[in-house]
Amino acid sequence: MKQLIKNVQILTMDEEWTEYKDGYLLIEENRISQLGAMTDPLPQADQVIDGKKGILLPGMINTHTHAGMIPFRSLGDDVPDRLRRFLFPLEQVMTPKLVRASAEYAMAEMLLSGVTAFCDMYYFEDEVAQAAEAMKVRALLGETIIDMATCDAKDSIEALAYCEAFIQKWQNHAMITPIIAPHAPNTNDPETLAAIVALSRKYNVPITMHVEEMTYEMEEFAKKFQQTPIAYLHELGYLDQTFIMAHCIFMTEEDMALVKKYKDNVRIAHCIGANTKSAKGVAPVRGMLENHLTVGLGTDGPSSGNTLDLFTQMRMFANFHKTHLADRGAFPAKEIVHLATAGGAKTLGLFDQVGSLEIGKQADLTLVETQSINMFPIFDAYSALVYSANASNVSDVWVNGQQLVKEKQLVQKDVQTLRAALYQQMDQFVTEAKRKAAEV
Amino acid sequence: MKQLIKNVQILTMDEEWTEYKDGYLLIEENRISQLGAMTDPLPQADQVIDGKKGILLPGMINTHTHAGMIPFRSLGDDVPDRLRRFLFPLEQVMTPKLVRASAEYAMAEMLLSGVTAFCDMYYFEDEVAQAAEAMKVRALLGETIIDMATCDAKDSIEALAYCEAFIQKWQNHAMITPIIAPHAPNTNDPETLAAIVALSRKYNVPITMHVEEMTYEMEEFAKKFQQTPIAYLHELGYLDQTFIMAHCIFMTEEDMALVKKYKDNVRIAHCIGANTKSAKGVAPVRGMLENHLTVGLGTDGPSSGNTLDLFTQMRMFANFHKTHLADRGAFPAKEIVHLATAGGAKTLGLFDQVGSLEIGKQADLTLVETQSINMFPIFDAYSALVYSANASNVSDVWVNGQQLVKEKQLVQKDVQTLRAALYQQMDQFVTEAKRKAAEV
Repeated sequence: MKQLIKNVQILTMDEEWTEYKDGYLLIEENRISQLGAMTDPLPQADQVIDGKKGILLPGMINTHTHAGMIPFRSLGDDVPDRLRRFLFPLEQVMTPKLVRASAEYAMAEMLLSGVTAFCDMYYFEDEVAQAAEAMKVRALLGETIIDMATCDAKDSIEALAYCEAFIQKWQNHAMITPIIAPHAPNTNDPETLAAIVALSRKYNVPITMHVEEMTYEMEEFAKKFQQTPIAYLHELGYLDQTFIMAHCIFMTEEDMALVKKYKDNVRIAHCIGANTKSAKGVAPVRGMLENHLTVGLGTDGPSSGNTLDLFTQMRMFANFHKTHLADRGAFPAKEIVHLATAGGAKTLGLFDQVGSLEIGKQADLTLVETQSINMFPIFDAYSALVYSANASNVSDVWVNGQQLVKEKQLVQKDVQTLRAALYQQMDQFVTEAKRKAAEV
Repeated sequence: MKQLIKNVQILTMDEEWTEYKDGYLLIEENRISQLGAMTDPLPQADQVIDGKKGILLPGMINTHTHAGMIPFRSLGDDVPDRLRRFLFPLEQVMTPKLVRASAEYAMAEMLLSGVTAFCDMYYFEDEVAQAAEAMKVRALLGETIIDMATCDAKDSIEALAYCEAFIQKWQNHAMITPIIAPHAPNTNDPETLAAIVALSRKYNVPITMHVEEMTYEMEEFAKKFQQTPIAYLHELGYLDQTFIMAHCIFMTEEDMALVKKYKDNVRIAHCIGANTKSAKGVAPVRGMLENHLTVGLGTDGPSSGNTLDLFTQMRMFANFHKTHLADRGAFPAKEIVHLATAGGAKTLGLFDQVGSLEIGKQADLTLVETQSINMFPIFDAYSALVYSANASNVSDVWVNGQQLVKEKQLVQKDVQTLRAALYQQMDQFVTEAKRKAAEV
């Protein structure tokens, strides 16, 4: 099966920043087999898609989310200590069916916004994996391990056992990579953290974790161990593993120098929208990149960042980092699109497969239309993506060569059906949520 | 003619924050004549609109923009000193027809995003007024006065004459308020600035101006006059007039204390998106509000903020001010929606007519649909508007009782026609723009 996408402005995001102002791209089975300028002789294809001068870029990559948390969206957004007042208590009433329905909904939302791969951590992660398989997306999925009774494990021993079974079940899947997701350095004891590293070694799977996200986390480690959480994790062996650290808002110069030595293993999922909505701060991304660390963008969960699209993140990234550095020239749009695509793919260890439009790579593609009123004129396509576009401008999306979004609609699923299925599972959650909200 | 909008969640934004979870609103001619809960007996109407559980709020108000600047969008976004490298030189090739076409396009874009009234400053402002009349929107429009030759005046004397004729022509229009728009304190000499105040007095029209937006503006006034631009403008009599100050990023405590004495006259158009994209900083809005100053939100021009919708501004406002104040509870979503509606109306002096949904007020309304994937669940409608929604969620818009947007389409105009008309006027601009871009 050959699909030809023509009449598109192609941003390949390859190492040379190759672009085609008016180009075509051929998908053969699940891979990119040709691309070039419309002035070239066009290849034959079974199906021809007219891109109508849209912008074709690699599928965007969301390096940190919690797909199971759609039910929490718009609940207690502006309440101090929301984590302990809303999230932890309500997570006790999560069920496998609720997580499954939420995850499918979240994946639909990501696909419709041009996200083709993501890294997730939550409970009942096997349900998330089944959802990912059903939705045909690419994902790194990790069961959360935390030092308290949760909806799916009475303690971290049980959570570790869940993790191991989960890894065994999914480790040879083409599109799903099972990983391990300890919640945070301060919410797991050292023994559990050590057991997690051992498990990661045993199965050669990545770890993802919230790291240096909270001021109280920093203070606790300074007081208890006279070190930063990253230095502490280093002693436990985390930096020797493939390790995706989410947030790193409070990363110090010393942390940076330490992590630099392990830069082939350690990557950072930067969630600017969630970090600033919760008033935590702006992570030192300029410094991370100067130290040659790998950085991708993440939305965090739908309760933290409220949207799952990377357009919101790209815009927030531009404005926050430019202002933070007092330099309007810092992080030009092009570099931000790179973080949302190639940077994300490198962060998740997927860059040999996806993250740039190059011959032989798997065909994960996002087509952004330029017909809507906010998309004119376009002197610079990167600028248009970062400063003008929003999720609604995504028109077509392919994952692994298969078209999953066509003319702004899901091809294989229906949004209203997914919503109804999710709503049906939310009864108890809504009752508890309203009770919690009334307490504020 | 009676139009009944039913099955909507109504956020009235009145002084008591009245809401109807499931409500209706009746428009009679151009005014709101009834509103209430769906459990009330519904009034008769000529036309019934099913709001399908959407969120009905006052039309949003954009307190600062340059509708003539659509041609500049995505041009040189990340270039230092863009104002002098791109904007000033390219403004020399602006023509009346180009401004007219750009203004209609910009107004269409605002309408489609739920903006029903705005404050504008640019050149050939008579063309902008004609566009506003054609597009049936509500606007305060000011011809720009600047101490240099521009596309429509060889000097500020000519610009002042243009201004006076413009005021005379439009001063009795029901929907358009002519105002005066000196560019900035540092780009006009004191004589011109004094003549502007005199003109404002003579016709009793408001003034709008970029104030305390630039670090070099602050430095210049400190050096030349040992005072802030606001103190300087005060001496010239500006604070005695109705005065809409755009930006005020660098407003000092002393400025604040001074302006407070004139709070019935002086208002602030806060443009968080443009201010931070250009790395200028975060205006002290918390302090302004604590001093009981009137504040509204603005997008700035499509070259500065790149979008003309207030959803982008509301989200940016939340994240920037929460982070700036290190307080996730600062500015809850409700207060931000207030700034975008009632606050904007007060800033433009329109609150007796619009800005809240109350019986007798003119019917400027925005309906935001909640069927799209990003709009579920909704525990809090304000949160959904600020943190989840984007411009594409606006489904229906009324201005002065007339429906101008219906099911996400313009009722009386067509976007592709407006775009073609604009593009037709852009030949010379595009040639010059590409020449400028090649110089960078």
